Amino acid sequence: MNSYNELKKINEKIHNLSHLGAITSWDQQTMMPKGSNDARSKAMAEFTVLMHQLSTDPKISDLLNEASKEDLNETDRSTLREMKRSYELSTVVPEDLVKAKSLAGSKCEHAWREQKPNNDWKGFLTNFEDVVKLSREEASIRSSKSGLTPYDSLLDIYEPGMNTEKLDVIFSDVKSWLPTLIEEIVEKQKSYNTVLPTGPFSIEKQKELGLKVMKKLGFDFDKGRVDISSHPFCGGVPEDIRMTTRYDESDFVQSLMGIVHETGHARYEQNLPKEYVALPSGTARSMGIHESQSLFFEMQIGRGRPFLESIHKDIVDAFGDTKEFQIDNLVKIYNHVEPGFIRVDADEVTYPAHVILRYEIERDLINGKLEAKDIPEVWNEKMKAYLGLNTEGNYTQGVLQDIHWTDGSFGYFPSYTLGAMYAAQQFSSVKKLYPNVNDSISNGDYSQAFSWLKENIWEKGSLFLTDDLIKNATGESLNPKFLKEHLTSRYLK
Amino acid sequence: MNSYNELKKINEKIHNLSHLGAITSWDQQTMMPKGSNDARSKAMAEFTVLMHQLSTDPKISDLLNEASKEDLNETDRSTLREMKRSYELSTVVPEDLVKAKSLAGSKCEHAWREQKPNNDWKGFLTNFEDVVKLSREEASIRSSKSGLTPYDSLLDIYEPGMNTEKLDVIFSDVKSWLPTLIEEIVEKQKSYNTVLPTGPFSIEKQKELGLKVMKKLGFDFDKGRVDISSHPFCGGVPEDIRMTTRYDESDFVQSLMGIVHETGHARYEQNLPKEYVALPSGTARSMGIHESQSLFFEMQIGRGRPFLESIHKDIVDAFGDTKEFQIDNLVKIYNHVEPGFIRVDADEVTYPAHVILRYEIERDLINGKLEAKDIPEVWNEKMKAYLGLNTEGNYTQGVLQDIHWTDGSFGYFPSYTLGAMYAAQQFSSVKKLYPNVNDSISNGDYSQAFSWLKENIWEKGSLFLTDDLIKNATGESLNPKFLKEHLTSRYLK
Repeated sequence: MNSYNELKKINEKIHNLSHLGAITSWDQQTMMPKGSNDARSKAMAEFTVLMHQLSTDPKISDLLNEASKEDLNETDRSTLREMKRSYELSTVVPEDLVKAKSLAGSKCEHAWREQKPNNDWKGFLTNFEDVVKLSREEASIRSSKSGLTPYDSLLDIYEPGMNTEKLDVIFSDVKSWLPTLIEEIVEKQKSYNTVLPTGPFSIEKQKELGLKVMKKLGFDFDKGRVDISSHPFCGGVPEDIRMTTRYDESDFVQSLMGIVHETGHARYEQNLPKEYVALPSGTARSMGIHESQSLFFEMQIGRGRPFLESIHKDIVDAFGDTKEFQIDNLVKIYNHVEPGFIRVDADEVTYPAHVILRYEIERDLINGKLEAKDIPEVWNEKMKAYLGLNTEGNYTQGVLQDIHWTDGSFGYFPSYTLGAMYAAQQFSSVKKLYPNVNDSISNGDYSQAFSWLKENIWEKGSLFLTDDLIKNATGESLNPKFLKEHLTSRYLK
Repeated sequence: MNSYNELKKINEKIHNLSHLGAITSWDQQTMMPKGSNDARSKAMAEFTVLMHQLSTDPKISDLLNEASKEDLNETDRSTLREMKRSYELSTVVPEDLVKAKSLAGSKCEHAWREQKPNNDWKGFLTNFEDVVKLSREEASIRSSKSGLTPYDSLLDIYEPGMNTEKLDVIFSDVKSWLPTLIEEIVEKQKSYNTVLPTGPFSIEKQKELGLKVMKKLGFDFDKGRVDISSHPFCGGVPEDIRMTTRYDESDFVQSLMGIVHETGHARYEQNLPKEYVALPSGTARSMGIHESQSLFFEMQIGRGRPFLESIHKDIVDAFGDTKEFQIDNLVKIYNHVEPGFIRVDADEVTYPAHVILRYEIERDLINGKLEAKDIPEVWNEKMKAYLGLNTEGNYTQGVLQDIHWTDGSFGYFPSYTLGAMYAAQQFSSVKKLYPNVNDSISNGDYSQAFSWLKENIWEKGSLFLTDDLIKNATGESLNPKFLKEHLTSRYLK
C-alpha cells in the first residue's frame, strides 16, 4: 500500500493548502478592501499555478498505476478511483489550451458585463466565437481520451456518469408534461388574491431571523459562519464553512429563502465524511448532488407549507402580525408560479424549462450541430415552445442573461435541474420512511429529513458513483417522475 | 542580470504566496469559528513547510553568488544584500535544531499559560532550561557563521546591525539618568488631582471614535481594515493591512491609544516603497524601526497635549463634556507615570527600565554568564535598582510575565526601547524642520510629521542599513539624548 499511502499524503498536502485558498477567496468576496484587488489577484493567480503543479505532478501518474495493483479495501478503492478521475481531469488538456481558454473566457466575460445591459449580441458574438472554438477544442481532446461524445466529456466534469443519452430521455419526459403543468398552475393561481408584503424590513431584523432559521436548520456555527456578499455563495472548507447571503430592505422574502438554500449546501459540506476530509472521496459527489441539497432545503422543505408553519412565529416576531404574514398568504407568496424571461428569478415549476433550453443549445453547440451566431433564433423558438415567451431581438433577457457560457462553462446547466430531480426523489424516500414527516416539520422538528440526508447523502461523500449513491438511497436510478409528483402535489392539489 | 532577475522572480512568488498566509493568519485571529482550529493549524503548518522550502531552496545560494558578480545599480545591490541576509537567516540553523527548538518552545509556552497565574517558577524552569539550552545552541551556530557574539547573533535577527557593544553604551547612558528622572516625575505628579473617567463607554461609540482617529491619522481604508481581536496586532500585507484592536466598556483611554499605536505600524506598512513591495528591500527595516513608528504615533504624537487637543472635540462628542474630559485632565491621564511590575502596563518613562533589565538578563543568559535558575534573583536586584520594586518570590509579576522567552525569542526585547529612542530622535528632527509642528498638530494638521516620516522612513523600506537610515534621516546615529530630552520636556516642564 506504499503508493496508495503516498497518494494520500499528496492529497492531504493539497487539501491543507487548499484551505488557505478557500479562506482567502472568501475574504476577497466579503472582507477585502477594494484597493487591494490587484495584489490579491496576483496572489491568487500564483496560488492557482502552485496548486495546479502539485495536482498534476507526473509522479502522481506512476503512483496511480502502482496503487491500482495494491491490495486495497473497498473504500480505498473508491478513493483511488476519485484520485484518478481528478488527476485525469486536470492533466488531459494541454496547458496552452487551458491558458488560451482562460484568457478568451476572461475577455468575453469582461466585455459581457457591458454588452448585456446594452443588448449587444453582435459585440458579444465576436468574443464568444473564440470561447466556443476553444471549448470545442477542449471537448474534442477530452472526448478522444474518454471515449465520450464531445459534449458529454464536458458534462462529465460537473456530473460524472451523466451523459446525453440519459439526459435526453429524462428531459424529453419532462418536456412531455411540463408545459401543460405550467398552464394549469398559472390558471389555478389566477384566482389567488395574494398580498405582497411591502418593506422596509430592517436589515438587523432580517439578520436575526436568518440566524434563527440557520440554527433551526442545523448549521454548525462552531465550524462555520455567515457573512454578506453581493453574490451569495457557500465557500470555505468542510471544517470551516463560509456561507454568505445578502439582505434587501425592500424584500425579505427572497433573502430568507436564499439563506435556506445556502444552508443546504453548507450542511452537505459540514457533514461530508470526516475520515476522508482530505481525500477526493470525502468531497461532494457532483454539482447536481450539491444542488440537490440546497434544493432539498429550499424547495422540498423551505417553500412547503409545513416548514413555513414552523417558522411562522419567527417571521411574525420579526415583522409584525399583519395580514401579509398570515400563513395562507405566506404559502401563496412562496409558491407563486409565473413564466418569465430570467432563469435566476424563476420559480421551481418553470425553472426546468430554462435549463432544458440551455442544455439543448449547448449540447448542439459543442457537438458542432449549431453555430454560435444562430443561438438567438433557437433561443426564441424554444422560449416560445416551453414558456410561451417571445425573445426576438431581446438579448439582454435572452441569451445574454447568464454568465456560464461567457467563460466556457459548458456542461454545467443540467446540474440545476438534475439537482431539483434528485431532491424530489430523495424527499419522496423520506416520506416513504416517515409518512408523518410533514407533521414533524410543521412542528419544527426536521430531524427525520436531516438524519436521512446525513446517512444517505452527506456522509457518503464521493465514495459511490452518483447512480449507485441514488440507487442505494432511494431504491432506483434518477427518475423524473418524482419531480412531477412533487410539483403536481404542491401546486395542483 | 539573469541571476538577479531570477532571484526577483523567486521573491515575487514568495511574496504572492505569503499574501495568502497573512490573510489566513489574520482570519484565524479575528473571524475563524473556534471549532475550525485543528484544521486551520494543520493548514498553516503545511503552508509554513512550503514557504520554508521555497525560501531555502539551495539554488538560491548559487543565484546569490552569481548575482553578486552582475552589474547592478545601487538599489538592486541593496535588494541583493537583503536577499542574502534573509536566505542566510533561514538556512544557517540545521532543520533538526529548528524543529527541536520549536517543539521545546511550544511545550514551554503551553505550560507557562498555567504556570504564570500559579506563580510556578519551579515548574516553568523544567521546560525553560531546554529552551535556553537549544537557544544557546542556535546562538552558537549563528555566531560561528556570522562572527558575532552568541547573543548578538540572535539580536541581529530582529535588529540587524545592532550589537551588545553599542547597546551597552546606549543603555548605560539611560541608566545614568533614568532612575532620578522617574523619581522627579513621580514627585511632581503627586500634586495632580487627576479625575479618572468611569465607564461604561459604549463599544459603538468607541468604534466610531477609533475610526475617526484612524482617518485623521491617515490610515488608508481603501487598502486595509480594522477588526477586533483579543491581542491587537497589525497584520495582512502592505497592499491589504489588517489592523486589529480591542474595546473595553470600562476603559476607552487605553483602547484609544492602542488604536493610535497600531495605526503607526499600519501607516509604515502601507507606505513601504511600492516598487519593491515583493522584495526584501521593500519590507520594514527592523523590529526597532517598526516599533519606532507605532511609538512615534503613540508617544511622540498621541499622548502629547497638541494631539489630545486636536481630538478633544471627538472625545467630548462621543462621551460627553464632563470634567474628566477637560483637556488638562485628559493630558494628565495620558501622561501618568508610576513604577510598576508589569512591562506592558508601563508608561513611557518607566518602560526602558523594564527593557534594560530583560536585555541584561538575556544577554548574560545566552552568552553563558548566567544560568536560568538564577534569573529571579537577578530580576529582583535589578527591579530594586531601576524601579525600587521588590519581586522576591513574586514570579507571576516578575520573570513569568512575558511570553517572549517561553519560546526562545531572545534578542527581541531591546527593539522596544530602541523604537522609543528612534521615535524621539525622529520627532526631534521634525521639530527642527518645522518649529511650529506642535501648533499644526494641535490644529489637527499632522502632515508635517507624516510627510517627514514618509520621505525618511516609510518609503525607504530596507534599502539602507538601519544606521544609515537614521543618519540620513536625522543627521546622526542613534543617540539616547533625544529620548531623555523628550521625557524631560514632556514630564518636567
